[in-house]
Amino acid sequence: MASAAADASAGEESLRRALSEKQVEVDAQGSVVRELKASIASKDLISAAVEALSALKLEKASIEKRLQEIVSASNGGHQNKEAFRQAVVNTLERRLFYIPSFKIYRGVAGLYDYGPPGCAVKSNVLAFWRQHFVLEENMLEVDCPCVTPEVVLKASGHVDKFTDLMVKDEKTGTCYRADHLLKDFCKEKLEKDLTISTEKAAELKHVLAMLDDFSAEELGEKIKLYGITAPDTKNPLSDPYPFNLMFQTSIGPSGLSPGYMRPETAQGIFVNFKDLYYYNGNKLPFAAAQIGQAFRNEISPRQGLLRVREFTLAEIEHFVDPEEKSHPKFGEVAKLEFLMFPRELQVSGESAKRMVLGEAVSKGIVNNETLGYFIGRVYLFLTSLGIDKERLRFRQHLANEMAHYAADCWDAEIECSYGWIECVGIADRSAYDLHAHTKLVIAPVKKELGLAFKGNQKMVVEALEAMDEKAAMEMKAELETKGEVEFQVCTLGKNVTIKKNMVAISKEKKKEHQRVFTPSVIEPSFGIGRIIYCLFEHSFYTRPSKAGDEQLNVFRFPPLVAPIKCTVFPLVQNEKYEEVAKRIAKSLTATGISYKIDITGTSIGKRYARTDELGVPLAITVDETDSITIRERDSKKQVRVSVDEVASVVKKVMDGQSTWADVLWEYPSHHSASADE
Amino acid sequence: MASAAADASAGEESLRRALSEKQVEVDAQGSVVRELKASIASKDLISAAVEALSALKLEKASIEKRLQEIVSASNGGHQNKEAFRQAVVNTLERRLFYIPSFKIYRGVAGLYDYGPPGCAVKSNVLAFWRQHFVLEENMLEVDCPCVTPEVVLKASGHVDKFTDLMVKDEKTGTCYRADHLLKDFCKEKLEKDLTISTEKAAELKHVLAMLDDFSAEELGEKIKLYGITAPDTKNPLSDPYPFNLMFQTSIGPSGLSPGYMRPETAQGIFVNFKDLYYYNGNKLPFAAAQIGQAFRNEISPRQGLLRVREFTLAEIEHFVDPEEKSHPKFGEVAKLEFLMFPRELQVSGESAKRMVLGEAVSKGIVNNETLGYFIGRVYLFLTSLGIDKERLRFRQHLANEMAHYAADCWDAEIECSYGWIECVGIADRSAYDLHAHTKLVIAPVKKELGLAFKGNQKMVVEALEAMDEKAAMEMKAELETKGEVEFQVCTLGKNVTIKKNMVAISKEKKKEHQRVFTPSVIEPSFGIGRIIYCLFEHSFYTRPSKAGDEQLNVFRFPPLVAPIKCTVFPLVQNEKYEEVAKRIAKSLTATGISYKIDITGTSIGKRYARTDELGVPLAITVDETDSITIRERDSKKQVRVSVDEVASVVKKVMDGQSTWADVLWEYPSHHSASADE
Repeated sequence: MASAAADASAGEESLRRALSEKQVEVDAQGSVVRELKASIASKDLISAAVEALSALKLEKASIEKRLQEIVSASNGGHQNKEAFRQAVVNTLERRLFYIPSFKIYRGVAGLYDYGPPGCAVKSNVLAFWRQHFVLEENMLEVDCPCVTPEVVLKASGHVDKFTDLMVKDEKTGTCYRADHLLKDFCKEKLEKDLTISTEKAAELKHVLAMLDDFSAEELGEKIKLYGITAPDTKNPLSDPYPFNLMFQTSIGPSGLSPGYMRPETAQGIFVNFKDLYYYNGNKLPFAAAQIGQAFRNEISPRQGLLRVREFTLAEIEHFVDPEEKSHPKFGEVAKLEFLMFPRELQVSGESAKRMVLGEAVSKGIVNNETLGYFIGRVYLFLTSLGIDKERLRFRQHLANEMAHYAADCWDAEIECSYGWIECVGIADRSAYDLHAHTKLVIAPVKKELGLAFKGNQKMVVEALEAMDEKAAMEMKAELETKGEVEFQVCTLGKNVTIKKNMVAISKEKKKEHQRVFTPSVIEPSFGIGRIIYCLFEHSFYTRPSKAGDEQLNVFRFPPLVAPIKCTVFPLVQNEKYEEVAKRIAKSLTATGISYKIDITGTSIGKRYARTDELGVPLAITVDETDSITIRERDSKKQVRVSVDEVASVVKKVMDGQSTWADVLWEYPSHHSASADE
Repeated sequence: MASAAADASAGEESLRRALSEKQVEVDAQGSVVRELKASIASKDLISAAVEALSALKLEKASIEKRLQEIVSASNGGHQNKEAFRQAVVNTLERRLFYIPSFKIYRGVAGLYDYGPPGCAVKSNVLAFWRQHFVLEENMLEVDCPCVTPEVVLKASGHVDKFTDLMVKDEKTGTCYRADHLLKDFCKEKLEKDLTISTEKAAELKHVLAMLDDFSAEELGEKIKLYGITAPDTKNPLSDPYPFNLMFQTSIGPSGLSPGYMRPETAQGIFVNFKDLYYYNGNKLPFAAAQIGQAFRNEISPRQGLLRVREFTLAEIEHFVDPEEKSHPKFGEVAKLEFLMFPRELQVSGESAKRMVLGEAVSKGIVNNETLGYFIGRVYLFLTSLGIDKERLRFRQHLANEMAHYAADCWDAEIECSYGWIECVGIADRSAYDLHAHTKLVIAPVKKELGLAFKGNQKMVVEALEAMDEKAAMEMKAELETKGEVEFQVCTLGKNVTIKKNMVAISKEKKKEHQRVFTPSVIEPSFGIGRIIYCLFEHSFYTRPSKAGDEQLNVFRFPPLVAPIKCTVFPLVQNEKYEEVAKRIAKSLTATGISYKIDITGTSIGKRYARTDELGVPLAITVDETDSITIRERDSKKQVRVSVDEVASVVKKVMDGQSTWADVLWEYPSHHSASADE
């Protein structure tokens, strides 16, 4: 794959070069023709020149076509993907997997409802997440409010740094994400303008690669340089400036307590660290977990369910001794082998490679066993849901993507029609988060201050204690290097000299076995909506109807996530069959199996097609009063089971105690003339 | 009970009267004594008068004491309840069932985190809710965002009417709920000032009864009348004014799209009614359901977990033909018998009565079968969780409590230390909610308007189409009664006369079998946090330790809600036992049973006590390598089970397939000398 990509890239470059050379030839020959015509040359001479020009134009067109093909392919078969996505999205919206929120009021960009089947899939995914992570690892699950006071998000850095760069249409005031406009410009230029030079193409590609790293100034320069205007009006744009992505609100009636809707659930865990540590018997390591809503007031949401203003996060914070990151259960995942995309491969332009997780850790590609263990568990989680192994990779953050405090970071990326999408982030965040909420302790040494400042001691003490964190940490640093520092005491109207022995400044730390440290945090963070959307795409396929006159849609959800586990249909409208159907329905409810009963007179084939489109794994057709037919969605194979057994058979397959293959082996197969196949 | 309450009330009245009469006597005798002393009467005379005065004072004191007892009792053994609550809350906070949110930043009133055991209880309650309602009734569950645009909440009435009346300390600006201040004043006066007249006492009681009905003006008058001041500063208070309880925010970067955090989840269902109706095959009745966060920016939250600013609601909207509210499954709940508190009993000052649900419906006490069915299902839900039947009643709303559009409304109220608390509202809301989101259609009849207004037709049409809902509905009413109406057309600068044939005004309705109607909505709405808090109180008890030197706390959670299903303890620290314990732990995880393992050397009695306090139903003590002891929390009885069987035995009891009595019968009992009893 790596060399294919490299070939394509080389091909594109040489074609762009060939194209511009050919353009020069065409222009030159065009001049020749014009001159010949002006000089009243012989008809033969002119027509020969025109013919040559036509030939050159044909050659140019041929180069253009090849270049267009390569550009489109490097854009990933853009049109095919769009068509596929449209088919999936149409089915999802028509069957109410999701609904644009507040549609009857024209909707709000970036807000979606899960309708009945979507909601059921989501609740199955979350239940499995709880089983796979919380229960299996004995995690401490907590549930904190979404409304968060400013002070917490100030400490975490979100008030100052949780921003995107925005530009405004200078006349209408419409807002756009600055990087999106630049990205769209570069992509469009590269795809549609085949005449740009190789150098220009390289420049635009470099801009695309650097997009996330640009400062407001750099983005503004590029926008000016390329003459980018507002997409809707072509009006000039303002300079880029940061827009905070948190939804702001006010807590209580006074209007004096600003708050925000949390942008992540993690802070609720960090602020409770001490209590949770105590709950765990003052022992490390332990993990806390939280599932809940998070909010980002996106500037202009696009990409449907992938970039929304409100979403469900499931986050784990695994607290661990920074010097002891081995994991007792690592052996259970060490032999897993899957696509990994370490930093070096990305930098050298190669593709993701299959690697054995144990080797990735032992070679130091993955920083430590605990991080590796979670990568393995995330792999098992996603593939159990039905995510395609071949379209799942773990990509390591490049140095410039990672926060300065992070030790290592891997994203589980899933490939869908929008490209490779980050669905789970697994970060070793070192001690940053706990440190941010650690209490600053400023302890003036009153005796020394009294000796030095006599009657002014009180004012100096108060001024020292009133320092904010930044000032205090600067003073601490200066005292440690220089031993003393000039300090302004406003109430005295002058500076005083503070010496090292006059004040102790520290942040609280954890004592364990007399060693003092702040625990490291390893954070797997799951974007549940993104995982579900990718799952929809990976589960979707079409197959021809029996008559061959239309394509039918199917979601191949595994039983674990299927929104409805089975359907119950009387074969024909008939009181006896309906009785049996209702009896079966009751026994399914008692067993805790969700089902859909359909007693309409619609043809059985249509009823199968309707429920295949909802991803229902098994269909029960009541065609006799003592035994019935069970049909499996993907194979369309059928078996006969007695009415009394049917609920327990369905339950076994849904719980994973049996497979459909077991059922096929155990029960007589059935070939129905009345069914859809 | 009813007559006891009535007796108490009569007793209080006669005692208040007796007390004030006695006070008159005491004052009179006091005057006698003073006069005698002034007139230099004989010592004997004076001392006889003083003795009489003392006797009177003693009699007064005795009346006072009896009155105080009655007042305290009518306040429900206030102090006992406070002490009980304190014991529960201490245990809940110490064991991290819940935590005041953002505690390390001094917290925010009305926001709480669920810590690990509380979060597990909550997730069990919600899972059971899904099983009991959504699955059992085949409801359509949806999941909508919390962020809601203003237009939706304008239509639902929340923007205009979702308010509480607030007063401000005129000097400090501190805000208080006006009704709370008045309520506190009246209660305190009644409890602590025994000298007030019978008439005054009756007046204060009337104020308490009318509290919810007072307008801003009436509340303001009372506050002035009683001279109520700010509780913290004694400063004067502003007049009461409405404060909207929704958290406001802004959607998108422009600042031009106001939004709110939803105050209930129901609106997300109503705005999707059409799609859900279609999903259900265009058939009524059907129910939709939603679990999610809701937000109320309370003015000054009190009552701990019962009045919070963010909470989880579980709501059902059952849509039904307004003329056909029978329910096919009503028979399944008709024989249930429990405490009901219909309107008439409340008005006549009686208490709640045990009633058979079927009779309540057939007698018309409950409006219809569907409403009755949900009351029955709610009863089963709450009692399955462990809510005490004797402290659960269904109270019908009084006429003045109900919205004008509602047909009937019953609250499931649970008694706890704060009194009877509304935990589930079950309302027949008639067609109001769908109507609110139904599109207003104003159809000017251009032909008639053209004939009447010629060249001005366009202006008239535009003015008609621009009417808001209120103006349009008023015009519709007037046209229907009078046939014509005066209508101001601003663009013409004059009034015109609109006749009935010139405009059609309507709201969209549902057609079913040619009959046109808006479906009725029956709405059971569950305050999950309130239910959980009441469950904590109903499950809590204390018992003496073996040594009798302390009281131990226990939560008697049923397996369904217990946060952790069992514990695993090696009896003593010993490698072999630890191995077995870990083996058992693994088999529990595989079975999906949550457990807590404790391999510390703490005494087994202490370990039992610790987990009783978390409400863990079963404890597994590893005291041999091939069989172990299972101990039940409440009976403290023990049985011996082989190591291989233990997980399946625990699972059976937790799933409700076996009871502990079955286990006691099946397995040999065990009398351990080493245990805590």
